Amino acid sequence: MTPPGRTPHTPVCIIGAGPSGLLLARLLRLNGIDSVVLERRTRAHVEKRVRAGLLEQGTVEVLRDAGVGERLDREALVHEGFEWRLDGVVHRMPFTELCGASVWMYGQQEVVKDLLDAHGDGPGLHFGVEDVRIASVTADGARVVCTIDGQPTELTCDFIAGCDGFHGVSRQAVPGTELVGHELTHPFAWLGVLAAAPPLSPELIYAVGDRGFALQSMRSQQVSRLYLSVPPGEGVDERGDEEIWRELDLRLTGGRGTLPTGEILERVMVPLRSFVAEPFQYRRLFLVGDAAHIVPPSAAKGLNMAVADARHLAEALADWYAHGRREALDGYSATAVPRAWQGQQFSASMTTLMHAAPDETVFDRRLRRARFERLLSSTAEATAFAEQYTGIARR
Amino acid sequence: MTPPGRTPHTPVCIIGAGPSGLLLARLLRLNGIDSVVLERRTRAHVEKRVRAGLLEQGTVEVLRDAGVGERLDREALVHEGFEWRLDGVVHRMPFTELCGASVWMYGQQEVVKDLLDAHGDGPGLHFGVEDVRIASVTADGARVVCTIDGQPTELTCDFIAGCDGFHGVSRQAVPGTELVGHELTHPFAWLGVLAAAPPLSPELIYAVGDRGFALQSMRSQQVSRLYLSVPPGEGVDERGDEEIWRELDLRLTGGRGTLPTGEILERVMVPLRSFVAEPFQYRRLFLVGDAAHIVPPSAAKGLNMAVADARHLAEALADWYAHGRREALDGYSATAVPRAWQGQQFSASMTTLMHAAPDETVFDRRLRRARFERLLSSTAEATAFAEQYTGIARR
Repeated sequence: MTPPGRTPHTPVCIIGAGPSGLLLARLLRLNGIDSVVLERRTRAHVEKRVRAGLLEQGTVEVLRDAGVGERLDREALVHEGFEWRLDGVVHRMPFTELCGASVWMYGQQEVVKDLLDAHGDGPGLHFGVEDVRIASVTADGARVVCTIDGQPTELTCDFIAGCDGFHGVSRQAVPGTELVGHELTHPFAWLGVLAAAPPLSPELIYAVGDRGFALQSMRSQQVSRLYLSVPPGEGVDERGDEEIWRELDLRLTGGRGTLPTGEILERVMVPLRSFVAEPFQYRRLFLVGDAAHIVPPSAAKGLNMAVADARHLAEALADWYAHGRREALDGYSATAVPRAWQGQQFSASMTTLMHAAPDETVFDRRLRRARFERLLSSTAEATAFAEQYTGIARR
Repeated sequence: MTPPGRTPHTPVCIIGAGPSGLLLARLLRLNGIDSVVLERRTRAHVEKRVRAGLLEQGTVEVLRDAGVGERLDREALVHEGFEWRLDGVVHRMPFTELCGASVWMYGQQEVVKDLLDAHGDGPGLHFGVEDVRIASVTADGARVVCTIDGQPTELTCDFIAGCDGFHGVSRQAVPGTELVGHELTHPFAWLGVLAAAPPLSPELIYAVGDRGFALQSMRSQQVSRLYLSVPPGEGVDERGDEEIWRELDLRLTGGRGTLPTGEILERVMVPLRSFVAEPFQYRRLFLVGDAAHIVPPSAAKGLNMAVADARHLAEALADWYAHGRREALDGYSATAVPRAWQGQQFSASMTTLMHAAPDETVFDRRLRRARFERLLSSTAEATAFAEQYTGIARR
């Protein structure tokens, strides 16, 4: 413990114990760099927070390198393709055959659990931290105040990693003159359910038709993850369970009644929103993952982009602490921002491909159909898509 | 001549002596099928009407098969790549290396001349035809009235080929209940000049930057074809020659003053407009080329799409007359419409890639930039582009 009257100092203060914060702490620790992680929520909340569940190959490699890939490699479902269902007609997209990379179905909360397990009783991980505030950020360090276990605490650090998501305090600590936010809201939302029901198909199904978009995904052979596109502003509880199942079956099977149903364990309403802050650095504060950028769920890029940021920042900090080199740190934003825009670009492209805008003209609809036809008829086009879907395009 | 009182009959009545009408007549003749071509304009006007100048490989093959490829093969400039100039930085797009196909620089009016030469003194080609009107179209034939050489004329035919462009009478002869037109107007126009000046570069240059879009193309080593994107509604004579050259130089060379200048031989204002009629057939009337669909000039697809239609219709008519088989004729629209939408899709995609919409947000701009970065960094993405640019994707 720090003696009274002395402000504790840590090399890196990580705000947020989501996957990017925990991964960053883990990677720093493997490089012999101490950090403190401050998380507003309880540990139980963080462990149960269900989010994305599709890991790109590059993400899996980072997790393996971080020594947290064992359970993932044992339990995750490896996918080498998915199904388009276009107006009821099935077309397989064999992305691994096309570009060599696979994706892994493994829930974000499982990644979080693995990172927490790896941390074990290690120091510096604080949950239920209240009133986190970035008191100052200079060219040489930063100061954070908060309440840990009811104790008002102040700590100084060399660097802050803002891993606290879109609504977190980190980005808001950057003066408005030093950061520009670019936002785009798509006129749809996704109503998602987690259900105790086996998946309809072992591969993901992206269904596009007159009734709207639906996605069939899974967490395991027994637990399905299903999404429906809905008008923006619809309440998460507006539809009854039965109506949700009926609509999912209509969109996914054409109403054949073959979609396996089961207890709905959780519902979530996901807005289709895109955001990028520029730059990702302000003095000694670095923004990571959702604090810097959010994507619509259409291409499942959010977690994967956050992992890429965390790895990048960990390497840059390791370079700093081990060799005193600041080039990688100084270049963090210049590299991570264009990578984020690539993620945005593909997410926006998949979003507009799969959704009919409320004001879609017949012309627009025909162009959208023509894009699908290209994707299904050209190996080059499908390969370009697969590179982005599996994430190897952003590496 | 037909004796008085008897209505002359021709197997195929072709309305319009642009490249698609003349090509269709030529292909029919090679198959032993007679046709009459009715053109409103004079022969001199048609021969001089400067239009597109980029022929896809598939177009060149059709022209060769039609026996009109000799001069083209001798005089056309064969291109295997073009240059992007993005904010002044040059990136070559080696489309032939990527997809195996080339494009030919050869003016539309040269194609028209070659087709007219091939027709020679052959029968059935009428210029300066006035008051062309489709009097009736049934399931078995059609009747056309017009004034040829001052003589009111009526002729009956088995089929009408509407090759008379967007503003022609053919499409307008289809009852509104039997045809739907889908239209999209992009918020730009292109001011084009034909100039007695050598091209800046032996390959086409697509320049995209803050000042707007510019295209450098050529008709020969001595004659350049240059375009500037301008606000819609700008008059073709609003800018002086000097201002046009200055703006072209700014967009193409960054204002280095290295763009070769010369006498401006012709100006044209091209709206960026897209249109597709559906279907392309009404009873015995078939729509071909611009009568059925128009594209913005961005991807130079208009002439190439028209040639594809003409070839397709010629083959279907040959099948009918030689073997009495109507499957190909009945399937004309079902095949040609999706092909037209592919052309629309690529034309719209190139248009939005190369132009900043007046209401473009920073978000949109970054996405556009990210699309370029993908195109320049992924071989698969570039190949998919090259397949469409050279037209092999639509065959």
